Amino acid sequence: MTVDFSPSRPCRVSDIPQWDMEADIVVVGFGAAGASAAIEARLAGARTLVFEVAAGGGGSAALSGGEIYLGGNGGTPVQRAAGFEDTTEDFRRYLMLAGGPAADAARVDLYAEQAVAHYHWLVAQGVPFKGTYLPGKWLEPTTDDTLVYSGSEAAWPFAQQARPCPRGHAAQLAGWGAGKKLMQCLMDRALSLGADVHYSARALTLVVDDHRQVLGLVVRIDGAPRFVRALGGVILCSGGFISNEAMVRQYAPAALACSVHTSAGNDDGSGIRMGLAVGAATIQMEQFFSTMPNMPPDSLVKGIFVNEAGQRFINEDAYHGRVTHFILRQSNSRAWLLLDNSTFARPLTNQDVEVHAVGESWEEVEGELELPAGSLTHTVQAYNDCAAQGQDPWFHKAPEWLQPLTEAPFAALSYSPADFPAAAFTLGGLSTAPTGQVLNGDGDIVPGLYAAGRAACGLPRWGDSYSSGLSLGDSTFFGRQAALHAAGTIAS
Amino acid sequence: MTVDFSPSRPCRVSDIPQWDMEADIVVVGFGAAGASAAIEARLAGARTLVFEVAAGGGGSAALSGGEIYLGGNGGTPVQRAAGFEDTTEDFRRYLMLAGGPAADAARVDLYAEQAVAHYHWLVAQGVPFKGTYLPGKWLEPTTDDTLVYSGSEAAWPFAQQARPCPRGHAAQLAGWGAGKKLMQCLMDRALSLGADVHYSARALTLVVDDHRQVLGLVVRIDGAPRFVRALGGVILCSGGFISNEAMVRQYAPAALACSVHTSAGNDDGSGIRMGLAVGAATIQMEQFFSTMPNMPPDSLVKGIFVNEAGQRFINEDAYHGRVTHFILRQSNSRAWLLLDNSTFARPLTNQDVEVHAVGESWEEVEGELELPAGSLTHTVQAYNDCAAQGQDPWFHKAPEWLQPLTEAPFAALSYSPADFPAAAFTLGGLSTAPTGQVLNGDGDIVPGLYAAGRAACGLPRWGDSYSSGLSLGDSTFFGRQAALHAAGTIAS
Repeated sequence: MTVDFSPSRPCRVSDIPQWDMEADIVVVGFGAAGASAAIEARLAGARTLVFEVAAGGGGSAALSGGEIYLGGNGGTPVQRAAGFEDTTEDFRRYLMLAGGPAADAARVDLYAEQAVAHYHWLVAQGVPFKGTYLPGKWLEPTTDDTLVYSGSEAAWPFAQQARPCPRGHAAQLAGWGAGKKLMQCLMDRALSLGADVHYSARALTLVVDDHRQVLGLVVRIDGAPRFVRALGGVILCSGGFISNEAMVRQYAPAALACSVHTSAGNDDGSGIRMGLAVGAATIQMEQFFSTMPNMPPDSLVKGIFVNEAGQRFINEDAYHGRVTHFILRQSNSRAWLLLDNSTFARPLTNQDVEVHAVGESWEEVEGELELPAGSLTHTVQAYNDCAAQGQDPWFHKAPEWLQPLTEAPFAALSYSPADFPAAAFTLGGLSTAPTGQVLNGDGDIVPGLYAAGRAACGLPRWGDSYSSGLSLGDSTFFGRQAALHAAGTIAS
Repeated sequence: MTVDFSPSRPCRVSDIPQWDMEADIVVVGFGAAGASAAIEARLAGARTLVFEVAAGGGGSAALSGGEIYLGGNGGTPVQRAAGFEDTTEDFRRYLMLAGGPAADAARVDLYAEQAVAHYHWLVAQGVPFKGTYLPGKWLEPTTDDTLVYSGSEAAWPFAQQARPCPRGHAAQLAGWGAGKKLMQCLMDRALSLGADVHYSARALTLVVDDHRQVLGLVVRIDGAPRFVRALGGVILCSGGFISNEAMVRQYAPAALACSVHTSAGNDDGSGIRMGLAVGAATIQMEQFFSTMPNMPPDSLVKGIFVNEAGQRFINEDAYHGRVTHFILRQSNSRAWLLLDNSTFARPLTNQDVEVHAVGESWEEVEGELELPAGSLTHTVQAYNDCAAQGQDPWFHKAPEWLQPLTEAPFAALSYSPADFPAAAFTLGGLSTAPTGQVLNGDGDIVPGLYAAGRAACGLPRWGDSYSSGLSLGDSTFFGRQAALHAAGTIAS
């Protein structure tokens, strides 16, 4: 038999010596998607094995802000308690915009209809939501409040196409990092329901029959390969590929500009490669989330970004990840955030931000930045004139963020990935049906194989219009769908 | 046995009734890559079968301008005869820029070193190059001249990083459409060398063994499946996927904005799907060539493009496909080409272009376009001031194209895909080694399978920096490499 296993070489069942373990459902990865899949599998009565490569569970979700993007059906209890109504149609429209040109309407429809039910499911698993709304612009709540605007809902052009509503639901926790709390709840629940979770267990490759039906998995435990039979299917919840530089270089090279990986370190793309090896298609592999946050504090949003031509290029009140993608596309990926004395602050996540220029006049700042004469000064003057009237005819920043930048001294913060460490994770992955079933290039099902979370291409699939909470919402919900479908195949 | 064949379901050799045909090398598609592969295979003494789905050969290449991007090694005889010297290093640098962030250095190095030899090979196959240079900016030579600038060589930022040189080598033909001439030469040569070419023959799926080695192909001829054994390999030269709307929607959704397909109609992605089905990886699937040409005539290049904010956004002397990609990324994909009386013309390829606004002053044009007050007028004024001094500090248009736009009347041509039919073809495809061997997600070889032309992701893989001739250069050269490698495997 083969002893050199690789995700890209599936193992034929006729080549394995024996099955060492067996379950109805085998889950790879114990992050947000994997834990949700394991819970749902156990609730369906399926014998469930989970293999996690790290020494503990939680995955990249445990390092996150723990926001889950939820809404529709009039609103979640949290939204309604805070006085917000959220129609399914507005929610659906926003999700379609968030998906960009490749938005998957079937996936969006299912999620838009069931997100409130998903909220109740999360609560039932023990995830605490305090139910209070925190106004303002936040990366994640720093208080123990639950609900925040976490995307571009209130910003052009989103607000014009879908009625704005806050939809970022963070698990209740004072301070940052509610993802750890979220994952603790989900993992505890999966374990208490009897999921058999193995840590430090690396999934090596899939086991297939001669018809390329996926029958199981080869896992390395304690240094030895173990052959694991999956009667109802293997669910790949192994994360994206931001930790794998070779894959980033090959598939999402623009993300190489981002030096910070939003990952617990095991987003190595191995699940994606396992899927490819059995004929699956990958989609949106170039896409990634990226951010150099331009808030908090809020006052930074009142500043304006300019590029090397001294031009503005976006409404600065759009989601920080959208702003960042627009920056990355400017000439030489260079941009500066212009602030006056009344708006000046340093971004909370980068107190060491480079103040590239300071001046008593905008002419001085323009000169220090070595921008074309008259370029920045014209932009600021034109902006100030219109901002004073509460208008932004160029980029449609909402009136609440419009304030003339007229109080000296003036400053320009460098927002270029060369100066400002940009964070990123990947959005492309295996093509799947809303059931989590992995699809081949013709859109047909690869039998026995499921994927959820960032191993799959899910709701978030367009870097330009990501919103915080989309990945966790997608991972937890579609992890569940995969387990439900897989459990259904062994129900009889 | 299975009677329902699909590219996404490889056929197991144990499931086929018999081999109906056999060759050393089996080529799918008789376009630029396929014909070049067939020639090289026959020159190597390999028995060669070619299956072309259309009733005749030529593929999409036959509809093209027939330009081949060549240079390096001091220059091709054509370049040298016209007085141009072209170092391998300059050529290599330009090709790396053309590849964008995902540029493949190994592929670029091989091509940069061997492009002059490839020129001689083309000549030896009967492709005529008159050897004369046509100055100015052209989509392709309209005279029977051979050599043109066909990319962004002389434009910022390319010219600053690689010494400019014209590298578009068109087959000699008076008028447009030298691609037909090129393909006639290559096809005649392949046939005269004894390639066995079957037309109206649709490749249905690959035949594999239990280890997923590719052994052959199922082809539908006269309505019946025929099982074709390939001793040395199958070479997929089946084109890209611009003709397959479902694939474009899934993999390159931004290309949906382009209503004209640069294709002979059979770029249906079937070869890409066949590769995926045997575990191959696809790369750069979002990328596509696109154009709404802003020349000829040359005078249009002296105009400036503005977006909905009345801003310029590119040096207008960049390659027209680059200009188009920048337009597609502007807000609502809207842009206008501003011209004055001395530069006014209609683009040769779109005489029906919509003249969206005409005015005796730029204020009038700004008003007609309903742009923010003062936006367009400021842009034009600032441009005119600097253009009068031969400078473009914002976007670095080369001095020869700088001319103040001061002679009334003034006009704005709509360059938005909603008004101006944009042409496109896809650049993403199967991941391959420079040998043409198809690679899986780990970069390992899929045995027995090769791909070239737009079924593969080749030299051109970044829409922003495509140049005319890159696809034909890549297709003809790497089609040859695939055949050489495949022939080598059966040499013993």
